[in-house]
Amino acid sequence: MTGLSRRRLFGYSGATLAAGAAVGAGLVSVAQAGEDHRSADEEAVPFHGAHQAGIATPVQDRLHFAAFDVVTDDRARLIRMLKEWTAAAAAFTGGHPYGSAAGGLGEAPPDDTGEALGLPPARLTLTIGFGPTLFEKDGKDRFGLRAKRPAALIDLPHFPGDNLDPARSGGDICVQACADDPQVAVHAIRNLARIGFGVVSVRWSQLGFGKTSSTTPDRQTPRNMFGFKDGTRNIAGTDAKALDQHVWAAGADGPSWMAGGSYLVARRIRMHIETWDRTSLQEQQDTFGRTKGEGNAYGAKREHDPVPLDKLPADSHVRLAHPDGNGGVRILRRGYSFTDGTDGLGRLDAGLFFIAYQRDPRKQFVVLQNKLAASDHMNEYIQHVGSGIWACPPGVRKGGFWGDALFS
Amino acid sequence: MTGLSRRRLFGYSGATLAAGAAVGAGLVSVAQAGEDHRSADEEAVPFHGAHQAGIATPVQDRLHFAAFDVVTDDRARLIRMLKEWTAAAAAFTGGHPYGSAAGGLGEAPPDDTGEALGLPPARLTLTIGFGPTLFEKDGKDRFGLRAKRPAALIDLPHFPGDNLDPARSGGDICVQACADDPQVAVHAIRNLARIGFGVVSVRWSQLGFGKTSSTTPDRQTPRNMFGFKDGTRNIAGTDAKALDQHVWAAGADGPSWMAGGSYLVARRIRMHIETWDRTSLQEQQDTFGRTKGEGNAYGAKREHDPVPLDKLPADSHVRLAHPDGNGGVRILRRGYSFTDGTDGLGRLDAGLFFIAYQRDPRKQFVVLQNKLAASDHMNEYIQHVGSGIWACPPGVRKGGFWGDALFS
Repeated sequence: MTGLSRRRLFGYSGATLAAGAAVGAGLVSVAQAGEDHRSADEEAVPFHGAHQAGIATPVQDRLHFAAFDVVTDDRARLIRMLKEWTAAAAAFTGGHPYGSAAGGLGEAPPDDTGEALGLPPARLTLTIGFGPTLFEKDGKDRFGLRAKRPAALIDLPHFPGDNLDPARSGGDICVQACADDPQVAVHAIRNLARIGFGVVSVRWSQLGFGKTSSTTPDRQTPRNMFGFKDGTRNIAGTDAKALDQHVWAAGADGPSWMAGGSYLVARRIRMHIETWDRTSLQEQQDTFGRTKGEGNAYGAKREHDPVPLDKLPADSHVRLAHPDGNGGVRILRRGYSFTDGTDGLGRLDAGLFFIAYQRDPRKQFVVLQNKLAASDHMNEYIQHVGSGIWACPPGVRKGGFWGDALFS
Repeated sequence: MTGLSRRRLFGYSGATLAAGAAVGAGLVSVAQAGEDHRSADEEAVPFHGAHQAGIATPVQDRLHFAAFDVVTDDRARLIRMLKEWTAAAAAFTGGHPYGSAAGGLGEAPPDDTGEALGLPPARLTLTIGFGPTLFEKDGKDRFGLRAKRPAALIDLPHFPGDNLDPARSGGDICVQACADDPQVAVHAIRNLARIGFGVVSVRWSQLGFGKTSSTTPDRQTPRNMFGFKDGTRNIAGTDAKALDQHVWAAGADGPSWMAGGSYLVARRIRMHIETWDRTSLQEQQDTFGRTKGEGNAYGAKREHDPVPLDKLPADSHVRLAHPDGNGGVRILRRGYSFTDGTDGLGRLDAGLFFIAYQRDPRKQFVVLQNKLAASDHMNEYIQHVGSGIWACPPGVRKGGFWGDALFS
């Protein structure tokens, strides 16, 4: 892997290229000057570590999430691709391009597609997860992994109100790309798809234009498409105790390859914003159990004050989802707002791409969602239209690769 | 319109609300502290002026573009809406919410949907355009405007290779929302759609995640999804002479209501990036006539050096599109990359949402596009799948409204 930053990539390789170039003068390019003075290292999130980045990491502004189907039966090819992906992910998150960039003498495609050249790392993180169908599909043990499937990696049950589109659900592998610059996130997913050609195929993908939860409670809480602050009581990325209790899988929880990993549940939640926008402020606030402006719970004064649950409407979202009403159950949320144009009726196809990380979905997401799906006042204004669950392995140690313990 | 910034909106109105509130303590919210210290004024682009903002304005990072159909026959209602839109646009671009915000006593919906609360103006610009069908549709003079239709507002001809989706083409009115924060752009379009309920309906909309052309040639040139720098020779937003010559319609050009306005052509250009990504660097560079790294034209050394057209392949994009080969014809480009998930074949639905402003499309876009559609090597890798043309009136003077000269 090259150690060059993206800023210099084609500049460097241009010299190599010119030596055998066929189109005469003008093909040699010089190193890019790049008027952007931010240093790559300043804004790079370390790729290697005990846990994957992109979970406890302070939530970046933008998302490109992709679900892949594995299209080969060849275990060795899959492993080879995961190794290539790991090298590429380490490069991209460090602000570097993938591979030798210019493709030697110009007769080969460039290894890197190039649209992130000149852009800083933008705090890019790439987080991989393995779905139930990677371990077993249609009764078949595709890659000799069936015995390693964690019990916590369940097939999610049907929840009341679900209207899931298979074309936006599931996937053998997922990659969550988060960055402060969407071009950097899109570039990473595109290049992983390219590297994986013949091994994986993109099943679906989702862009998120604005984060709706943060893991930095000291900063301004972001707002969702209902205009409300979201994730006020989210798990802080710096709260090691809460992360160990609620987010990181422990060795005793299941298979050892997942120790230090986490389970990702994603839900594409369409928001009927035209309907919402015509309801009264009172109704909107009653739905949440919080005010729209400050975000304080009913009966509390400030956003971060303790929530007196009995002061909130019984069917309000916050009352139903609050840890105090659920035996202390918490999940780490990392969702994003999306807008995918309009539907056939002139309504914005908009909503929340919900992402939650947890130690065991059976005891966390499923418990909460069963309750919300049954009783949440908010169900009048939302519909779950996509869904997925993936086991995200622990972080990669230097020299290792994504999922190495699973495939060893 | 309130003079409050978005940061204080619901804080302020909370007090009003509490007076008549029905749900007891906790409903009063206090002014938001907002840990973001950027001043609203610092990043606001002035709304009023001789020309609409969002054309010569330095290109912002993100786009939400919406095309609307007018669903009423009532001219007075349409004018009323345009006045409301103008007030809202002035508020949003200034970093303010729309209207009285909290809806009085909580029994009414809030005037503003709220998801941009706490966010700075992010250099938001809102630019309106009127399509041919506003002036005449199915032979009908819908709003008494037929006689005012500019000759330059043509129905675009069919170009070779066009594969236009009617559901992504046309529209009686368009609004281009550009901002450095997509949440601010999406908020603006959503609220305009909401204000226009019963008068207009969103026909289609397009998010752009990264600009592909700049109007600031002194800064780093952005790259498109082919990984190439785009818009190296674009018209600079500060080049008053070039703007007068190529972008702003003059009084003598056509109807007086368009003096100081400009004609917008948008094209949704799907890029077959999986195919592109498998072609050699040489082929990619031959397609453009420029190098990928530095972006210098063949036969030139640096990106901004003069382009020796005879050194470029005859079918290269730059050679065909260059002003020197087209009698000096130039257009101001403001396009954005898009990625709208995947198509049914697992390919990224990605490309360029091309936006160009010009003084007369008959002499500019149509001339260039006829040439490109016939001969551009790049046609192997792209397809035009959406299209629209609109007449963007001049800027709004204080006290005026969008299109006031057209409707007077």
